[in-house]
Amino acid sequence: MKVNKGVEWAAHACALLAVLPEGWTLSAEALAAYHDVPPAYMAKQMQALSSAGLVVSVRGAAGGYRLARPARDISLKDVFLAVEGAAPSFRCTEVRQNGPCGAAKAQCRKPCGIAASFYAAETAFRDSLAGVTIMDVVASASAASDLGKAAKIATWIQSNASRPGTER
Amino acid sequence: MKVNKGVEWAAHACALLAVLPEGWTLSAEALAAYHDVPPAYMAKQMQALSSAGLVVSVRGAAGGYRLARPARDISLKDVFLAVEGAAPSFRCTEVRQNGPCGAAKAQCRKPCGIAASFYAAETAFRDSLAGVTIMDVVASASAASDLGKAAKIATWIQSNASRPGTER
Repeated sequence: MKVNKGVEWAAHACALLAVLPEGWTLSAEALAAYHDVPPAYMAKQMQALSSAGLVVSVRGAAGGYRLARPARDISLKDVFLAVEGAAPSFRCTEVRQNGPCGAAKAQCRKPCGIAASFYAAETAFRDSLAGVTIMDVVASASAASDLGKAAKIATWIQSNASRPGTER
Repeated sequence: MKVNKGVEWAAHACALLAVLPEGWTLSAEALAAYHDVPPAYMAKQMQALSSAGLVVSVRGAAGGYRLARPARDISLKDVFLAVEGAAPSFRCTEVRQNGPCGAAKAQCRKPCGIAASFYAAETAFRDSLAGVTIMDVVASASAASDLGKAAKIATWIQSNASRPGTER
């Protein structure tokens, strides 16, 4: 079982968008450059975040992405589901209906004990992620870094972000 | 994110081994036939369960697999880890160290907020599975089936299981 790498990238991208000044945006290319990840793959994650309504794509010469709502209202569960999709990680193949003693389909309306337990575990996984917001992620990153790093990020944003109504 | 199909098969195999009379065994081939799944792949899951110490492989003409301990002492977490391995589903690639504002390695001794949150979610997933035993799975399957099915399973076991000291 593996979480798609795109989840990690999307979460980091959201954390960077969260520290932009109000109304500023970053292109998928700039987000890829900041995180040093392949631009095409970063673009794919940004589209997934956009489809899920977590980021907004602003069009035009000074366009790019910004968060669709405050960082405290976007959880890691939101980001996970945006990239991974909502399908459960346990894909029940109804093994109980197979073979010489297979159960009749009519007796299998409810998930079996195995499938139900994995669905419950997935709910626990998602609930845990639901308790962490992008704001929390930014706060923990800030706590772990120093003023020098904060200044570096601010300078990078100044040079790479776009403001509505301006041309870079 | 997908749970390996082998986890489902291994869990079902454990549930069947749990209803064998004491000392009886089932071969990987018989387990595959019962669940109508590919024999080579079922054999692979049984080897994983054996390596993890959840089942014992009894050698000889009347050999096969039996549970290594009571079904109430084997959890779905045990089965999951036996087949999937212990590596976390979130594989942190230390994105925070990348790019023009990347953090120094020395500042990254602890996992970042994103990785830490996914590790916590994985713990919640595993803890949830740890609360369900193979005995629970058998009990829920028994509750959902009827006497006719129980008789069918008993007959199938009589014809397909091996007893130490006997030849089939």
